[in-house]
Amino acid sequence: MSTTGLVIAVDCSTTAAKAVVLDSAGIVVAQASYPLRTTQPRPAWHEQDAEQWWAATRSAVAEAVGALADPGRVAALCLTHQRESFVCLGSGGRPLRPAILWLDGRAHDEIASLGTARVHELSGKPPDTTPAIYKLAWLARHEPSILADAVHIGDVQAYLAWQLTGRWATGLGSADTLGLFDLQRGDWSAELLDLAGVRADQLPELVATGDQIALLTPDAARALGLPGPVPLVAGIGDGQSAGLALGATEPGVAYLNLGTSMVLGIQSDGYRWDAAFRTLAGIRPATYTFETVLNAAAYVATWCREQFGEPDADGATGAELEAAAALIPIGAEGLLTLPYWNAAQTPHWDALARGATLGWHGRHTAAHLYRSILEGVGFELRLHLERLEAVTGERVEVIRVVGGGARSPLWIRIVTDITGRAVRVCADSEVSAAGAGVLAREFLARSAAGSGTASSTRSSARPAERTAPAEHTAQPGRTEPAGRDVLPDPAVAPGYDALFAVYRQMYPALRGLFGELAAAAQTVARQKPPGPGR
Amino acid sequence: MSTTGLVIAVDCSTTAAKAVVLDSAGIVVAQASYPLRTTQPRPAWHEQDAEQWWAATRSAVAEAVGALADPGRVAALCLTHQRESFVCLGSGGRPLRPAILWLDGRAHDEIASLGTARVHELSGKPPDTTPAIYKLAWLARHEPSILADAVHIGDVQAYLAWQLTGRWATGLGSADTLGLFDLQRGDWSAELLDLAGVRADQLPELVATGDQIALLTPDAARALGLPGPVPLVAGIGDGQSAGLALGATEPGVAYLNLGTSMVLGIQSDGYRWDAAFRTLAGIRPATYTFETVLNAAAYVATWCREQFGEPDADGATGAELEAAAALIPIGAEGLLTLPYWNAAQTPHWDALARGATLGWHGRHTAAHLYRSILEGVGFELRLHLERLEAVTGERVEVIRVVGGGARSPLWIRIVTDITGRAVRVCADSEVSAAGAGVLAREFLARSAAGSGTASSTRSSARPAERTAPAEHTAQPGRTEPAGRDVLPDPAVAPGYDALFAVYRQMYPALRGLFGELAAAAQTVARQKPPGPGR
Repeated sequence: MSTTGLVIAVDCSTTAAKAVVLDSAGIVVAQASYPLRTTQPRPAWHEQDAEQWWAATRSAVAEAVGALADPGRVAALCLTHQRESFVCLGSGGRPLRPAILWLDGRAHDEIASLGTARVHELSGKPPDTTPAIYKLAWLARHEPSILADAVHIGDVQAYLAWQLTGRWATGLGSADTLGLFDLQRGDWSAELLDLAGVRADQLPELVATGDQIALLTPDAARALGLPGPVPLVAGIGDGQSAGLALGATEPGVAYLNLGTSMVLGIQSDGYRWDAAFRTLAGIRPATYTFETVLNAAAYVATWCREQFGEPDADGATGAELEAAAALIPIGAEGLLTLPYWNAAQTPHWDALARGATLGWHGRHTAAHLYRSILEGVGFELRLHLERLEAVTGERVEVIRVVGGGARSPLWIRIVTDITGRAVRVCADSEVSAAGAGVLAREFLARSAAGSGTASSTRSSARPAERTAPAEHTAQPGRTEPAGRDVLPDPAVAPGYDALFAVYRQMYPALRGLFGELAAAAQTVARQKPPGPGR
Repeated sequence: MSTTGLVIAVDCSTTAAKAVVLDSAGIVVAQASYPLRTTQPRPAWHEQDAEQWWAATRSAVAEAVGALADPGRVAALCLTHQRESFVCLGSGGRPLRPAILWLDGRAHDEIASLGTARVHELSGKPPDTTPAIYKLAWLARHEPSILADAVHIGDVQAYLAWQLTGRWATGLGSADTLGLFDLQRGDWSAELLDLAGVRADQLPELVATGDQIALLTPDAARALGLPGPVPLVAGIGDGQSAGLALGATEPGVAYLNLGTSMVLGIQSDGYRWDAAFRTLAGIRPATYTFETVLNAAAYVATWCREQFGEPDADGATGAELEAAAALIPIGAEGLLTLPYWNAAQTPHWDALARGATLGWHGRHTAAHLYRSILEGVGFELRLHLERLEAVTGERVEVIRVVGGGARSPLWIRIVTDITGRAVRVCADSEVSAAGAGVLAREFLARSAAGSGTASSTRSSARPAERTAPAEHTAQPGRTEPAGRDVLPDPAVAPGYDALFAVYRQMYPALRGLFGELAAAAQTVARQKPPGPGR
């Protein structure tokens, strides 16, 4: 095993399992991707077949390894993955039902009844759609035999680690997103397990981030095309993994995924819980991640392009909206949009909130709506930043951005000017996998230095252990991802400041109406259908 | 002169002068129309050349008369016209400047400084864009020599009557829209004239509705192609004239113009002034008209079709939106639109209000927005009706609707179901002119009965005279306009009731933000232009 060996980084995301082989400098030498299929058996339900997680991962790794001249140079493997999604395995190791995904919204009743400040305090997670705890409680109520019969209940990393190594274990940087984890104690919470109806023996063992979970089994190594077993290194969830690749472990530096949803994350040495963010495991042991979330960001821009844009020769829509929006002055001539198409998350956490557009007059065009959506997401990010900073007392100076939205120079200009922060637009090709690659290479470096796998067998990291992370943070240097720097334009700050002062009042003004509108929709749904058009 | 003679009805509207020749049964036997050109020398300014009013009217009448086998059968002429627009004439009888139209928005400062409750009480007109008083005050400030030098200042009917008869006079059903008229006393108000900077000697004499203003001059008769002078009968403004044609003079019956703007009117024997409506001269002497107003109704639907619809082979846009919107359930799946694209009129009277859309989520399409606009206008009409009825204590049972919006069966269905009123969709071909035709025919009937022109020389109708209208209302029977009756569907009432309960809270929730958004737009406009796209 050599520090000049190759590593395999796997990102088992919501849409695909992606395998990337990286050399010791972090350069990609091979990669492959296999799609994952999500089913929606009911409107708010989102499920996947967990066995597909493994089949797609195996196929992607095998294909990438197959492209290598010497698969024997592969020295370690590390996983990152979609967070909060979970699977229940029976005694034969087969899933008892489809895995329930992070975006699955079936558990609104359980969120309403169980989502307390105490759950937030323990788990770090404000009552919301994503944490698995509410969906587990839903299972306890609607499919009780699943929970009773499950031998194993775990996240994506646990399931893949079990397929790869035979050990039922996951990383400490992944486990907490189930919402069953006491973040301050660093272990599963009996109180939260009780709420969910889950037994501690069903949950995976916990391995510190960057430590070895186990060696691959000979069968698994063979399935991946490797000549022999290599260590599986404990990875972290895709958000933090991207943050690691983007160097957002330093004070004042945030990672931002401007994708379908918008997630901004910073690191903290101290534990906090607040409506201004959700608290997750940190990128590094004994740290915490504070993330702000808007579930619909590029989602809304894409919606606008698809609904109101013109299709081009390639079947894409709305390129003309992007071009026209760039010619419209800031503020879209008096049009403000609250981008809550998929409810409000930080800091309002309002499942009934929806999008709103304010200021329509006759000169507005589809391009004005499009610009106001891009600006609305920018104003929302500024709101997130200001609330986050008010709680932490530390200013975010630099934002490193990836995601589909980062490909729009107009949107980056808007976000930069509205937030008044320096923004680095980073190449976003498999940035989460790149973070897993960093952890695998660091593991190899430590192993070469003789301190490698010793801690790999502990079943849980206790706080005392986790406050001595020196062995992990000694090696990595400052990570400065490549990218294009964009600086805020002070000339437009007064205008955006004035518009933001209005934007921040929109939700408080409309809060009560969202609930009443949802109730009115129920009244409409209850009435005898009068036929279309009535 | 015979009751079986023909009458000429002229509607000198904002867009065209239209002449209709009607027989004694009200059947159209000839018609012609000449367009009018509006100029916008500045964004909010709307002006016309008053001499075009006359030229287009003369041409339209001459063309219609030219189509008659026997022009000698024409026995009377009556005018209706765009309201609130005014012209200033010099000593030579030529306009001193372009006429300033009802929709001209230049006088916002004068509305703010002069628009008091006292002006409302006297004139019946809430402080708003349309009444001429504020634009006259604007002239006094910005073009003082115009007001000082003007020999005549008057409305469209006054100008055309002067061209036709040489008498500077207008109808009591037209004069009040200048906003200089004391509706309760039935005469020009010295107090309002003082505010506007206008002298009483500049204003037209006043003739009771339906009485003779004067005979046409021989020159005018010749210009119209008539063999000799006929009486010019005092007409009323286009809104009330349409109401007369629609039979909306009975209790419980309202006229509704669902056009670019939406205007609903009812008649009252008693004078009232309230923010719930604007008060105008009644259709019949000694009555009053209460009108509710939304300045953007079909305007918003057209805007939506043009911005978000697909053009068809004829160059029209959005037919597919209309079809798709009819298939969407009531409430547009949770989307509510406040249709204040051109500010709010009754009952809020807020010049800074703008459109707003609430409830966006990912399933919404352009057709949802379109439906929510049609419903938003329906909810606004319900708001108008409920406020109006709360003040008058009388319920509107039947609505008789004309205007471009009435051609949409979907929109009529929506308006009917939301308001819970019986709606008669009337043929809207020149309905305002038809009302002028009714007045002309009634005049002929009275003349034939020997009570015709006696009152035509009085210069002002005093209250005592105006409370004895028996001579005018004895002849006309119940007017039942042809049309298609639509009844509300009780099955959808609970859903629309629930949605309306949310709709009526939208403006109160957003009121403060409209003002702040306008102020923010000023801040944006003041900053140094950073170039497009910033």
